Amino acid sequence: MIAILGGGTAGLTAQREISRKTDDYILIDGGPMGTTCARIGCMPSKALIQVANDFHRRHHFAEQGIHGAESLTIDTKVALSHVRKLRNQFTGGVYRGLKSFEDKIIRHNARFKDAHTLEVNGREIQIKKAVIATGSHPWIPDNWLPFREHLITTDELFELDDLPREIAVIGLGVIGLEMGQALHRLGVKVTGIGRPHNLGGASSPNLLKMIQTHLQSELSLVFADAIPLAITPNNKLRLQVGEQTLEVDKALMAVGRRPNIKGLNLEACGVQFDERGLPSFDSETLALKGAPHLFLAGDANALRPLLHEASDQGYVAGQNALATTPERYQFRTPLAITFCDPNIASAGQNHRALVQSERPFVTGKTLFNNQGRALIKGESHGAIEVYADPATGVLLGAELFCAEAEHMAHLLAWSITQKQTLEQLLQQPYYHPVLEEGLRSALREAAGQMLDKRRVELKKIT
Amino acid sequence: MIAILGGGTAGLTAQREISRKTDDYILIDGGPMGTTCARIGCMPSKALIQVANDFHRRHHFAEQGIHGAESLTIDTKVALSHVRKLRNQFTGGVYRGLKSFEDKIIRHNARFKDAHTLEVNGREIQIKKAVIATGSHPWIPDNWLPFREHLITTDELFELDDLPREIAVIGLGVIGLEMGQALHRLGVKVTGIGRPHNLGGASSPNLLKMIQTHLQSELSLVFADAIPLAITPNNKLRLQVGEQTLEVDKALMAVGRRPNIKGLNLEACGVQFDERGLPSFDSETLALKGAPHLFLAGDANALRPLLHEASDQGYVAGQNALATTPERYQFRTPLAITFCDPNIASAGQNHRALVQSERPFVTGKTLFNNQGRALIKGESHGAIEVYADPATGVLLGAELFCAEAEHMAHLLAWSITQKQTLEQLLQQPYYHPVLEEGLRSALREAAGQMLDKRRVELKKIT
Repeated sequence: MIAILGGGTAGLTAQREISRKTDDYILIDGGPMGTTCARIGCMPSKALIQVANDFHRRHHFAEQGIHGAESLTIDTKVALSHVRKLRNQFTGGVYRGLKSFEDKIIRHNARFKDAHTLEVNGREIQIKKAVIATGSHPWIPDNWLPFREHLITTDELFELDDLPREIAVIGLGVIGLEMGQALHRLGVKVTGIGRPHNLGGASSPNLLKMIQTHLQSELSLVFADAIPLAITPNNKLRLQVGEQTLEVDKALMAVGRRPNIKGLNLEACGVQFDERGLPSFDSETLALKGAPHLFLAGDANALRPLLHEASDQGYVAGQNALATTPERYQFRTPLAITFCDPNIASAGQNHRALVQSERPFVTGKTLFNNQGRALIKGESHGAIEVYADPATGVLLGAELFCAEAEHMAHLLAWSITQKQTLEQLLQQPYYHPVLEEGLRSALREAAGQMLDKRRVELKKIT
Repeated sequence: MIAILGGGTAGLTAQREISRKTDDYILIDGGPMGTTCARIGCMPSKALIQVANDFHRRHHFAEQGIHGAESLTIDTKVALSHVRKLRNQFTGGVYRGLKSFEDKIIRHNARFKDAHTLEVNGREIQIKKAVIATGSHPWIPDNWLPFREHLITTDELFELDDLPREIAVIGLGVIGLEMGQALHRLGVKVTGIGRPHNLGGASSPNLLKMIQTHLQSELSLVFADAIPLAITPNNKLRLQVGEQTLEVDKALMAVGRRPNIKGLNLEACGVQFDERGLPSFDSETLALKGAPHLFLAGDANALRPLLHEASDQGYVAGQNALATTPERYQFRTPLAITFCDPNIASAGQNHRALVQSERPFVTGKTLFNNQGRALIKGESHGAIEVYADPATGVLLGAELFCAEAEHMAHLLAWSITQKQTLEQLLQQPYYHPVLEEGLRSALREAAGQMLDKRRVELKKIT
């Protein structure tokens, strides 16, 4: 018997793999199912961002000859129910998928009694292997808990009947920046509060500065610690933010997510824990250290909490739960996208990782303030940085802050997988007029800094 | 002395290369300069499309909770002047670039007296080599010429003070489809007239059918020959369109462009001509047959009339005008994009080319009507087809008709350059939720049809 704990993205991918080989498995999940992604994560957030950006676009209308922008208003109740309608379409697909193996699903939570025994709803289940894919939950620091009624997490955001009028967004990482900007564009008075060195997941000092300047021109960002103080007589949440106080209707907590590990009693399995109190595991096999018949996949291992990584990890955990000896897998080239406007993205090694690795690298940069297509789109902001090995010209990584970076990040990540050099990349086609021509400028700039300062043009036929 | 005939994209790239090695050159152009691209082509058309699509987006507003869409109106005079403002920014950059070598520019047209003598404004210039990059002009068939005052070409479209109220778009290739849809979205009553087998440059029968259905749901398309008949008493142009007659204010001629070759008197140089009356040339060196000291580049050779190809050809012509012996160059992987909505694009070999090559290929297809991110964008239309070698899985080509195909076409073209297999492509990262996941579905479908029907997942570390 293989147990799959958690019916989210990682668990369902594990189930798909395991069910191809055996019927001797169960999937255990006492939560809402539907996946974090479809229910409260990637999908509803992108739907809300889409509405916010469509509404925001009105600021370009007058110069383009589109009159009447001032008559446009946003009905946030309708916007939220539009988001939920789409969300239900996506979770509906997930729920329908569950039907094909509903006899294998136990809708309760599991707890380990020992390394091979699970307690589920009062009964004991003997297992040989398990995939632990219990996901994560938004973190609320202890000092915020007394103010829980004034806090919103992404668990609740998309369930709101209407948006609050004033909100503090606590944390300016990926979720904080995406939702902070979207709520601002939907007419909420947003104060974003966080650290300047991790804005939207970026790490390049130059890009971080640019992101900060650009976003501060649109919405209020404060770089200070936020401490909840009190509920005011008129039912507002009072916060200490650096030296100031701030009163808001609600605070959106976006200070990170934590693995759903606590209730599992993994201690009973001989599992080792790291200094953060998280189970230690082999990042190539996903086997838990001290309990190598258990495989930890998806957000539950906090390694790379992204949907496509969770899916891959579910695959690996499923395969390894089936295998006599767990095998090591090569995960894909890193790729991360923050869907703010302009997008923030990275491919391969980001700036921070390269600096930490102490390997030499050259940086090719291009600003988008004069990029042709970006000008046409009215989105001539930001920049691209590409990082390459100065001796071989092999592309190592990139960070982007520009329009449609989500697409160019794929182009770069795929090229990094293929160990492409700047020379090879500059021999690729770039259509016109496209944003990818801006990327080419960055690649050219990097090529110009290579040890042999080569100038790359068309290949000769020899 | 090297003469460069034409100061457009190809000519200017040739000038850049030639001027790196010698001062003994001249650039001869009696036309408006500024490049076809920036002046009347890629750039102003994309600017007009941007306005049209931004205005069209209002149809999504109500369901998203954005009220007031019915109050939006388009002022096409302002839209056109916005287009010209951007256009002037782009041509301004070109004109500024000319300053650095203005003493080398002759603002007249040239005509060959013999293979090494040019006549320019009454004087003779002896040349050793020449780059012929004289560009192209919109074709107007002879039977349309008597109605010239009622015809608009892209030479004139962006110069109009205002748009006509009713227009027939003659030709539904790339330009016809792009401009036809944009004009429709800007409130012009458009009748698009053309052939169903070359819509927007697509060649796959399945995609062509889909493009036709989708576009016909938005604007009026007629598949018949159009013949101009008369000017009516109220100053309209009457057309015979199949069995019907149609009266319109103007007709936008989009039946193709023709090289600007006639006035050059290439006959005097011993040049060979093909059956279309165009000069024959070597497609790898660009040398003219019968006059191998002359190099034909850009739209003037009608080979691949796209900006990025013109630029590459200008590079090759420039290099070869400098070289003792012309060298053969490898042009980039084919990439074509039609910026209608959804985009039409192709990468590598398109469907028609593959069928004509008679090599075996499998087609992986995915519909976008249920693609997650496309649903969120409200753009869940179209499909992607990828073509691969059934034995090796090497990607050969692709055709796309979907949102943001312009970006995915780059991803595919770059992968084709690198001779990537379906297996390698499926081991690349795909973020979530992105349109590229739709592309992955097509690649998976193709992989499932390969001779060994392989199922591709993560790579193991061995």
